[in-house]
Amino acid sequence: MSEPLRLGLAGLGTVGIGVVKIVQRHAALLTARTGRTISISAVSARTRDKDRGVRLSDYDWEDDPVALARRDDVDVFVELVGGSDGPAKAAIEADRRGQGCGLAIHGPEIAQAAEKAGSVLRFEAAVAGGIPVVKALTEGMAGNEVKRVVGVMNGTCNYILTRMESERLSYEEVFEEARALGYLEADPTLDVGGIDAGHKLSLLSAIAFGTRVNFPGVELEGIEQVSIEDIEQAADMGYRIKLLGVAQLGARGLEQRMSPCLVPAASPLGQLEGPMNMVVLEGDSVGRIVLSGAGAGEGPTASAVMADITDLARGTRLSTFGQPAVDLDRVQPATGATPAPYYLRMLLQDKPGALAKVATALGEAGISIDRMRQYRHSEPCAPVLIVTHRTSRAALRQALEGVMHTGVVVRDPVAIRIEDL
Amino acid sequence: MSEPLRLGLAGLGTVGIGVVKIVQRHAALLTARTGRTISISAVSARTRDKDRGVRLSDYDWEDDPVALARRDDVDVFVELVGGSDGPAKAAIEADRRGQGCGLAIHGPEIAQAAEKAGSVLRFEAAVAGGIPVVKALTEGMAGNEVKRVVGVMNGTCNYILTRMESERLSYEEVFEEARALGYLEADPTLDVGGIDAGHKLSLLSAIAFGTRVNFPGVELEGIEQVSIEDIEQAADMGYRIKLLGVAQLGARGLEQRMSPCLVPAASPLGQLEGPMNMVVLEGDSVGRIVLSGAGAGEGPTASAVMADITDLARGTRLSTFGQPAVDLDRVQPATGATPAPYYLRMLLQDKPGALAKVATALGEAGISIDRMRQYRHSEPCAPVLIVTHRTSRAALRQALEGVMHTGVVVRDPVAIRIEDL
Repeated sequence: MSEPLRLGLAGLGTVGIGVVKIVQRHAALLTARTGRTISISAVSARTRDKDRGVRLSDYDWEDDPVALARRDDVDVFVELVGGSDGPAKAAIEADRRGQGCGLAIHGPEIAQAAEKAGSVLRFEAAVAGGIPVVKALTEGMAGNEVKRVVGVMNGTCNYILTRMESERLSYEEVFEEARALGYLEADPTLDVGGIDAGHKLSLLSAIAFGTRVNFPGVELEGIEQVSIEDIEQAADMGYRIKLLGVAQLGARGLEQRMSPCLVPAASPLGQLEGPMNMVVLEGDSVGRIVLSGAGAGEGPTASAVMADITDLARGTRLSTFGQPAVDLDRVQPATGATPAPYYLRMLLQDKPGALAKVATALGEAGISIDRMRQYRHSEPCAPVLIVTHRTSRAALRQALEGVMHTGVVVRDPVAIRIEDL
Repeated sequence: MSEPLRLGLAGLGTVGIGVVKIVQRHAALLTARTGRTISISAVSARTRDKDRGVRLSDYDWEDDPVALARRDDVDVFVELVGGSDGPAKAAIEADRRGQGCGLAIHGPEIAQAAEKAGSVLRFEAAVAGGIPVVKALTEGMAGNEVKRVVGVMNGTCNYILTRMESERLSYEEVFEEARALGYLEADPTLDVGGIDAGHKLSLLSAIAFGTRVNFPGVELEGIEQVSIEDIEQAADMGYRIKLLGVAQLGARGLEQRMSPCLVPAASPLGQLEGPMNMVVLEGDSVGRIVLSGAGAGEGPTASAVMADITDLARGTRLSTFGQPAVDLDRVQPATGATPAPYYLRMLLQDKPGALAKVATALGEAGISIDRMRQYRHSEPCAPVLIVTHRTSRAALRQALEGVMHTGVVVRDPVAIRIEDL
């Protein structure tokens, strides 16, 4: 039996307590699997006196997570405080001695500093909760040139969108429900604005393409503007709307988008219901692999933290992003997105020639129409849905301007990208 | 830069050639990711003079895979010959010096021998092709008590079953198509008899539950008896038929089944189309994670082999089954399966009271009926479908005997287990 692996746990929120529970409940199992005792030396959190439902009195207490990280009896510093600055960052930076494990927000700098110091920094729990997607990409696909990473990476947004559809409710109504259920971050923009999911996409991009984490390079659009009309009419055309992350590296640079997209209703992503995550990884040899599961919550997230801890206990040492952080390429964000088909919804004045004018405006921008539907209507305006063939965003913008100039369109048309899957 | 990692490759079939292609095409990528050059020292196959479409002249040739495994310039012996005895086993057993990587059929003995010799034996490619399911279970879920492993682990069977449904063809017709497409093993019973999938299930069981691989303990039933009638009538009740592997450890022992089962049509497994694999892993913390992808083929399988090789190049050293093979428990196969609902199809004589007699026979065996459908019919016999509530197999057997004794049933009833998912 090797030496015990001693943890210092900063953060005793849902996930931290989940980790404590696993370490306590599965001591024998963890030793059988890693050949070592996994123990907790000390913990740290903002408030000490609080019943957290688990026995913590066996562990030393540190008020300061940085002091925790520096303790001699801490082999692995587990940072579950969250937030991108303040104690989390300071504590991880302080951990020059041992092995660090936790969320990576200031990814490039922290990973580089850790690797320079001979430390290992892991962040499985930071992406897609309990789904071992960091591991699948870094290790399982290490023999592949990665072609694309696509996924639903925020369970709350997926809950909101699927519930809007199943209950025929507005965004605002389901948003309030999600808030009441505690599904939303204190700042809900992190969820519904796509920021949290964008963070995750940027981390996966770095591994997939060997590029420096570049969250500001992620094109972000949240789900706040998604209407029940679009959800229902997309469904009528065989699609579902998802807050979808897409990353791919091409001649035009690194494309990273997190935005509402249409996906085929029959595809695995289209069928993902409720507060779940799903990541599709495409490699040149493996083809497409799909991983799904709970993207958040005590058990799933603690399970991912434990995966990193058991790896460290077994002696596995990997670069944070699958190759030394210092070697990661600085790649420019792509100029414009890969051409794609688009879903357009517009409201036309009900007079002769209106549809022809719209079709002409699209044609003049070089956009051809795959399918079009005009719905029966009672109002003086006719809802029209169009699915275009593949087009560039520049051509789409030109077409939408042309459509507005026809004078037959009542409101700004809605345009949502359709992602091939 | 560390020392190069030198491979000895036994077997130059589809997968072996796939590995050669990746090593040649992605030399720079592999070095960036592992910090080492990955090279091939020597290869071995049954026939030397054969154009395999890749340049092999840079590598030494060995007629004997055992000699290949023993070479001083081979750090990793990659065994892709297949078969459970003969050269594969002998060669792996000979590899006492370095690290072995390949299929594990004689799992317990070979893993134990390898670990005694300080070698590492890996077999990602042996289960579910390119899907990193061995890694997800051994490493990603290392902090979980595994509750259940469920999956479709033979793509050919899934192809046959989904194509029977989509094209309304008989088993025999699609079997012949699959043979023509080269989807079937030389001995097709390995596929359609569930043997290949059963091997895979037994390997995952060992990791999941820390038990000795016990393939003879897998209850096996192939898809040869699945009729298009059952596929269509199951669909009508909201189910699809899959060749499903289920492993779980309980008080009654280790339950391992590979057999046709009904799964909800709307579940991820129910929606799996074509020659694909899908594995559902259930853990006490992580809940349910689902992994899917191609279960076979040059690229996906070679990708899985490369995952093991890159792990070895990065210095990762794991026990074959996630804990020392010598520590794996010998667990008795479970007596009887976990109770489940069942789908029953029978043909009744069209006379008054027939249905009542069947219902009575079920009731006398303690089986209650969840749903029943009798179809309109032109023949003198009426097709009847029954979905039971959860019942033991013993009660089911008794019920079916009772049904036969009523004298109103024309043929032996069909009974297929329904798996909750």
